Amino acid sequence: MAADPALRAVRAVVFDVFGTVVDWRGGIVREGGALGAARGWEVDWPAFADAWRGRYQPSMERVRSGERPWVPLDVLHRESLDELLAEHGLGGAAEADRAALTLAWHRLDPWPDAVPGLLRLRRSRVIAPLSNGNVALLVDMARRAGLPWDLVLSAELVERYKPHREAYLSAPRLLALEPPQVLMVAAHVGDLVAARGCGLRTALVRRPDEWGPGGRAEEAGPDDGIDLVVDSFVELADALGA
Amino acid sequence: MAADPALRAVRAVVFDVFGTVVDWRGGIVREGGALGAARGWEVDWPAFADAWRGRYQPSMERVRSGERPWVPLDVLHRESLDELLAEHGLGGAAEADRAALTLAWHRLDPWPDAVPGLLRLRRSRVIAPLSNGNVALLVDMARRAGLPWDLVLSAELVERYKPHREAYLSAPRLLALEPPQVLMVAAHVGDLVAARGCGLRTALVRRPDEWGPGGRAEEAGPDDGIDLVVDSFVELADALGA
Repeated sequence: MAADPALRAVRAVVFDVFGTVVDWRGGIVREGGALGAARGWEVDWPAFADAWRGRYQPSMERVRSGERPWVPLDVLHRESLDELLAEHGLGGAAEADRAALTLAWHRLDPWPDAVPGLLRLRRSRVIAPLSNGNVALLVDMARRAGLPWDLVLSAELVERYKPHREAYLSAPRLLALEPPQVLMVAAHVGDLVAARGCGLRTALVRRPDEWGPGGRAEEAGPDDGIDLVVDSFVELADALGA
Repeated sequence: MAADPALRAVRAVVFDVFGTVVDWRGGIVREGGALGAARGWEVDWPAFADAWRGRYQPSMERVRSGERPWVPLDVLHRESLDELLAEHGLGGAAEADRAALTLAWHRLDPWPDAVPGLLRLRRSRVIAPLSNGNVALLVDMARRAGLPWDLVLSAELVERYKPHREAYLSAPRLLALEPPQVLMVAAHVGDLVAARGCGLRTALVRRPDEWGPGGRAEEAGPDDGIDLVVDSFVELADALGA
C-alpha cells in the first residue's frame, strides 16, 4: 500500500499520452524517415518532428479560444502537416502520403517502462489515457503498443482541449469518483497544475528524452503543488503500492 | 475472412451489454439472494430481478422524453430499487444495503461464450460495449469479468439513452469510421433495428436464458433487415473470419 494517505485514496490513474506514455518524436522520425526515403524527400526528420509538435499548442488554441469550432486532433495534425510540407518544398506530396503520415501519431512507441508500469497499476487502479488525442488515435495506439487501458478518456469526449477544466473533470465524473480519487500523470508541469486546479491528485514523470536524447525533463517547482515526482511508471506503481 | 463483403468491411464491433454480454438476471438473483439471506429478507429474487429490470425502459423513457434531465443508469437503478423495496415491505432497508445492491449491476457474469468470442474478435476488430449502462458500471464490470474491451462506449458519453440516434452514431464518430464499418451486436431486435436506422451493420445473438432458463430468445423478422443471426460470440467470430 502507498505510504501517503492521499495516494492510498487514489482509485483511478489517468495519463497524458504524448511525451508521457509514448515517444512521439522517435515515432515521427521513424515513420517520416521511412516514407521520405521511399519518396526521395530531403528532410531533417528530427527537426520536422519538432516543428510539427511545435504547431500543436497553437493549433489547439484556435479551438480553445472559439476562433474555430471543435475538430479532433487528427484534423489539426493534418493541417499542420500540410503547412510544413509546403514550407519544405513538398507541396506536391500525394494525398495518400499525407494521410499516412498523419496516422504516424497513431503508431507511436511507448517508453520502455510504460507497459510494465501500467500492468502493475491496473491490478489495483482503473487506468486510462486523458489526452488531447482523439479517441480513434488513442485506440489505434493502444492496440498497437499493448497499452492495457480500462477505458479511453479523451478531450474529444467533451470537445474541450486540455487545459480546459471540463477535460480534467470528465475523468472523475465518468468514473463516478471524487476529483482527489483521480491521479493525473504527465511529463508536463502545466498539465498537472491545471489538473490540480480541478482537485485531482498529480504525479510528474520525468521524460528527459521527450525532445530528443540529451534533453532535460520538466521539473516541478515548489509552488506547483505536485503530489509526486517519479522517473518511470514502475516507480509510480511502487509509490502507489500497486 | 468473412464470406459476406459487408461483414468483411466491419472494422469495429459494438455490443449491447445487459442480456447480450452478461446475464443480468442471474447476477441480481445471486447478489440479492446473498444480501437477503444475511438480512433475513423474504424475497422471491427471480421475480424481484424481473421487476427491477421491468422498470428499466420506463425509467429511461422519462429521460428520453425530456421529463427529467440526464441522469446515469446507476441513479435510475437506485430509484427503481427504492420503489421495489418499499413494495416488498422493506422500506426500512439501510442506505449501505441499497447502495451495495445497486452496484450488483456492476458485478454481472458474462455468458460463457462472451469472453472467448471477444478475445477472438479483438484480434482483427476494435471491440467496445455500446450500452445504456454508465461508464463506471461498464468499467467495473469489465475489470471483474475480464471483458477485453478496447474502449468503453456508453450512452453516458452523449447523455442520450438508446435508441436515440446520437447513442449509435457516437460509435462511428468516435472511432473515425463510417456507420457501415461498425457492427452492432444485441440480443434485442429493437436495439438492432434502431442501429440499422443509423446505418450500422447488425447481428442478433440469441440469448434464450436472458429471462431465466427455459425462455425464448428474440428472433429477427423478415423486415428487420438484420445482417446476421448467431447463437454465441464464438459463432460471431467465425462469421467475421476473426
